[in-house]
Amino acid sequence: MRIPDGPAFIPNLRKRGGIHVPMSKRKAGSFIPLPAEPIVLVGANIGGRPNFMAAGFAGGVNHEPEIICVSLSRKHHTPIGIIENGTFSVNVPSIDYVVETDYCGLVSGRDVDKSKIFTVFYGELGTAPMIEEFPIVCECRYTGQRMEFTTDIAYFGEVVQVHVEEDLLTPGKKAIDAIKARAILYDRLDNTYRAIGDEVGKGWASGREYGA
Amino acid sequence: MRIPDGPAFIPNLRKRGGIHVPMSKRKAGSFIPLPAEPIVLVGANIGGRPNFMAAGFAGGVNHEPEIICVSLSRKHHTPIGIIENGTFSVNVPSIDYVVETDYCGLVSGRDVDKSKIFTVFYGELGTAPMIEEFPIVCECRYTGQRMEFTTDIAYFGEVVQVHVEEDLLTPGKKAIDAIKARAILYDRLDNTYRAIGDEVGKGWASGREYGA
Repeated sequence: MRIPDGPAFIPNLRKRGGIHVPMSKRKAGSFIPLPAEPIVLVGANIGGRPNFMAAGFAGGVNHEPEIICVSLSRKHHTPIGIIENGTFSVNVPSIDYVVETDYCGLVSGRDVDKSKIFTVFYGELGTAPMIEEFPIVCECRYTGQRMEFTTDIAYFGEVVQVHVEEDLLTPGKKAIDAIKARAILYDRLDNTYRAIGDEVGKGWASGREYGA
Repeated sequence: MRIPDGPAFIPNLRKRGGIHVPMSKRKAGSFIPLPAEPIVLVGANIGGRPNFMAAGFAGGVNHEPEIICVSLSRKHHTPIGIIENGTFSVNVPSIDYVVETDYCGLVSGRDVDKSKIFTVFYGELGTAPMIEEFPIVCECRYTGQRMEFTTDIAYFGEVVQVHVEEDLLTPGKKAIDAIKARAILYDRLDNTYRAIGDEVGKGWASGREYGA
């Protein structure tokens, strides 16, 4: 397991008897302080033609049904397609497609035809364009809910079906190997795309070491 | 740069003349298909006492002002504090605090007093409890906006001030080194916490290789 060097890496902090090391902090202003965010391409058909835009503001908001939020700048072209069809897609890129992914954030579908960059396929909803070359993609039904802000509007979509590269699935197993998928993240703190690193804990489990 | 092995790692895909490799896909059902999400502790005072909960549904939604969304299960205790004070905090853990972070998702503030796990400090808002031991924390003013779903409710907060560990800041430089911060992510695909990996591209820049 490769973990960055640190002055005090103690996996089970309970063992150090509740001793904590407060850090000296400085005010750094107002920004979204998240070192790891998803980076995805949001797809929608506009006038019957697929368009894709890079989105760093994307994430789950609900289970049962599974609902995903994409918050898109008011300047973007893609929302037109979301409203037009009531559907959109969320496409998770691999490391191999960093260039295309970033490109889809640099240019607008208003000015450039982005329909030929990828091999596009459609699923159950019929109108949510998905990317064959990406390892994990999903089609979403716009719930009709949206939240308006000054620069962006958040759109909410129910995940109707996830389509996953065959090699990433293990029969009878729910988990998907993100390392094998060569998935990436967006590091907002220094505006970089990064690979996903080694496991450092299990969700809903590591905390038992503390006494839960 | 350490990058997982892949059959076709070609950083500049334009060079391969638009040849793409469609992947054979399988339907995998309905879930949030994101391999990298932030994992944070959302803090709020409840009856004057700080409480923290782990949240995997957290992310930016707007710039100018900077607004962050945290979507929290209806069962959780923390929303009471968000409504009570109109403030909350978002605390970004380091690898060293995986156990505590997960613990704060396993137990509810309704049943367990989580106010003594960390050294707590307050900033400009006075009522958003922040964690001294975490490298990057921020205080948020609840905008009053929320979006209701079946299992969760999304709350929106304006980031009033980010407080960052002194060592992570470089005078005159905006970027913060997430590797040095030993930041983690939540991999929803197999329910693990992971370290943040090597840089594989630059935001709003890598795409120029494609022709933007």
